Amino acid sequence: MRIVVLAGGIGGARFLRGLKQAVGPGADITVIGNTGDDIHLFGLKVCPDLDTVMYTLGGGIHEEQGWGRSEETYAVKSELKAYGVGPEWFGLGDKDFATHIVRTQMLGAGYPLSAVTEALCDRWQPGVRLIPMSDDRVETHVLIEEPDAEAGQGGRKAVHFQEFWVKLHASVPALGIIPVGAETAKPAPGVLEALAQADVIILPPSNPVVSVGTILAVPGIRAAVAGASAPVVGLSPIIGGAPVRGMADKVLAAVGVETSAAAVARHYGGRAAADGGRGTGLLDGWLVDESDAAAVAEVEAAGIPCRAVPLWMTDLDTTAAMARAALALAEEVRRA
Amino acid sequence: MRIVVLAGGIGGARFLRGLKQAVGPGADITVIGNTGDDIHLFGLKVCPDLDTVMYTLGGGIHEEQGWGRSEETYAVKSELKAYGVGPEWFGLGDKDFATHIVRTQMLGAGYPLSAVTEALCDRWQPGVRLIPMSDDRVETHVLIEEPDAEAGQGGRKAVHFQEFWVKLHASVPALGIIPVGAETAKPAPGVLEALAQADVIILPPSNPVVSVGTILAVPGIRAAVAGASAPVVGLSPIIGGAPVRGMADKVLAAVGVETSAAAVARHYGGRAAADGGRGTGLLDGWLVDESDAAAVAEVEAAGIPCRAVPLWMTDLDTTAAMARAALALAEEVRRA
Repeated sequence: MRIVVLAGGIGGARFLRGLKQAVGPGADITVIGNTGDDIHLFGLKVCPDLDTVMYTLGGGIHEEQGWGRSEETYAVKSELKAYGVGPEWFGLGDKDFATHIVRTQMLGAGYPLSAVTEALCDRWQPGVRLIPMSDDRVETHVLIEEPDAEAGQGGRKAVHFQEFWVKLHASVPALGIIPVGAETAKPAPGVLEALAQADVIILPPSNPVVSVGTILAVPGIRAAVAGASAPVVGLSPIIGGAPVRGMADKVLAAVGVETSAAAVARHYGGRAAADGGRGTGLLDGWLVDESDAAAVAEVEAAGIPCRAVPLWMTDLDTTAAMARAALALAEEVRRA
Repeated sequence: MRIVVLAGGIGGARFLRGLKQAVGPGADITVIGNTGDDIHLFGLKVCPDLDTVMYTLGGGIHEEQGWGRSEETYAVKSELKAYGVGPEWFGLGDKDFATHIVRTQMLGAGYPLSAVTEALCDRWQPGVRLIPMSDDRVETHVLIEEPDAEAGQGGRKAVHFQEFWVKLHASVPALGIIPVGAETAKPAPGVLEALAQADVIILPPSNPVVSVGTILAVPGIRAAVAGASAPVVGLSPIIGGAPVRGMADKVLAAVGVETSAAAVARHYGGRAAADGGRGTGLLDGWLVDESDAAAVAEVEAAGIPCRAVPLWMTDLDTTAAMARAALALAEEVRRA
C-alpha cells in the first residue's frame, strides 16, 4: 500500500513514527515535507521540518525537545555569539550545524533540495521517502503589527515565520500568513506522481496553516490532493479547543479559522459535499479526539465522514493506533 | 615606529608574539598575511595562516599544536564523517568552524576578505593590523608525481598545498610550486601603503617559499618591499640545515634552493650588491642562528649584513630577544 503524508515538523514526524509501526517494515510511505519554515542562518540553509522528520525517523532526534539532535553540544553557537554574529534565538547545535553545512555545500554545488534531502536521508535511513514540497525557495512570513513609536500610529511588517514562532513565541497577533515565493514554486520531482499513485493520503496532526497549508500553497499540490483517486484522511491537530502542541491557534486566527477540531476540518473542506455531491475540499475523512466527540456531527454535516478516537501521541503505541484508525477510516470511505 | 611583517602561519605568528612583547603595547605593527594556504572545505572558506596569526595573538590558539583553537571539540567533523562528506584529513574543530562560517557568510554578502579579516579581528584584538596579502583568491598548488598505473609511466599532477602538506605530509617530492591566481591578484587595500610608510620591514622565520614567497608573488608586493625606504630584515627559518618547524626543505627543493640559512638569504637576495652597488633582492639584513655562525661570512659575501643570534623560539622571552635583534640590525643598516 502506497501511503502519502503531507508533513510539517514535530507533530508530523511523531505521527510518521506511529504510522511506520502500524504498517510494518514493508510499507511504502512517501512524505511531502513542508519547506516554508526554511531559513538561511549564518549563510547556511536550514530546513527545520525536513530535518525533524529525518532525525525523528532516523533515530537522531532530541526526544524531549522534539527537534534538533540528541546529545547535542553548542560550541559553534557560542563562538558565533562571541563574534557578535546572530541571531541567537535560533538554537543550532554542533551536530545540527553539520547537516546544514552539508546541505548548503550541496545546494551551492547545484543539487536541488530534493536531491540533497535524499543524500542526507541516505545516512539516516528514515524508512520513508522524504521529498520537500518544492525545490524552489518558499519562506512563510507572518504579518504582525509594528507600533510606530514616532508617529504613534501602528504599522505592519512581515517577519520570517521562525522569527514569529521562535523569537517572538507567537506572543503578538498574526495578522496574516504569507508563503513568500509559493505562487511561483513548482512541486519537487515526485510530489505529484506520489499523490497520483497513492493508495491513501494522510494529513497528519501538523499545523494546518503553516505546515500543511504551505505545502498546499504550492501550485498543483492542492489540485493533486483534491483530484487523487486515493482517499484523503486527516487527523485533527486541535484537541479540546487548543493545539496539541505548539501555537497553531495563533496562526489559525490569522486565516480566520476557529481553534476547534471541526473548524479545521471545514477549513480543509470535504471532497464530497454535504448533500453527497462533489465538494470543493480535500477530505474524505477526519479524525477528532474522543474528547471532541461532540464535533463529529458537525464535521459530518459538512460532508466529511468523522470518527472520534484517542489523538494524544503520548507514546509510540498510541500513535500507531491513531495511524491504524486513519487507515481504517480510509478503507471505510474507499468502500463507500 | 611602524613595523610591517610578511607572515605565514605558525612561525610567523609565534615571532609576532615575541615582536609585540619586544616593542610594547604602543607598537604599530601591520601584518601582511599569506592567503595562498586558503582552502574551501565543506563550502566554507578556510584561511589557515590568517587564523593562526589571529588566534595566536588573540589568545585563542592551541599552544602545543600551533594551529587551531584551544579546548577544541570535534562534533561537526564527526557528523560530516557520518554523512560520508570529506575530506577527513583536515582537522577543523567546532570553534574553528564558527570562524569559517562567519567568514563565508560575510564573503557571500559581498565583503572583501580584508574587511572580513578586520571584522574577525575585532573580536580577537590581536594587537596588530592583520591584512590578507590580497582580496583575490590565490591558492598555492604543488606539482607532484602521479604514477600512471596503466601505462607504467609517471605523470604529474598539481594538488592543493594543503593536500600536499596535511594529507600527504610532504612525503612525496614537490616538483614545483604554483601560486594559482597570484599573477592576476591585486594587493589588498593597505598592503602597498603599509610597505611604503614602514619604518622597518621584517621577514619572520616563515616558510620562504609557500608563505613569504606567495605573498611576494602578488604583483606589486615584491617591488614595494624592494623599493621601500625602510630597512628590510629577515630571520632564517632554517637552523643547522633543517627547518625550525614544518617541512620547508621539501618546498625549497622544489624551487632549487638548498636547505641552509645562507641559501635562503641568497634566495631572497640583498638590496645592496656585494660590491656595494644596487642589488636585485629584498634584504638589508639577515639573522642566522648562532649555530650557523659559519654562514655569516657567506651571507655577507652576497652583500647582506648578517648576524648570528639565538633563533629558536622556545619561549616568549627568547622570541622577543630575536625580534629585538632584528630591530637592532635594522637600525644598524639604516644608519649605514
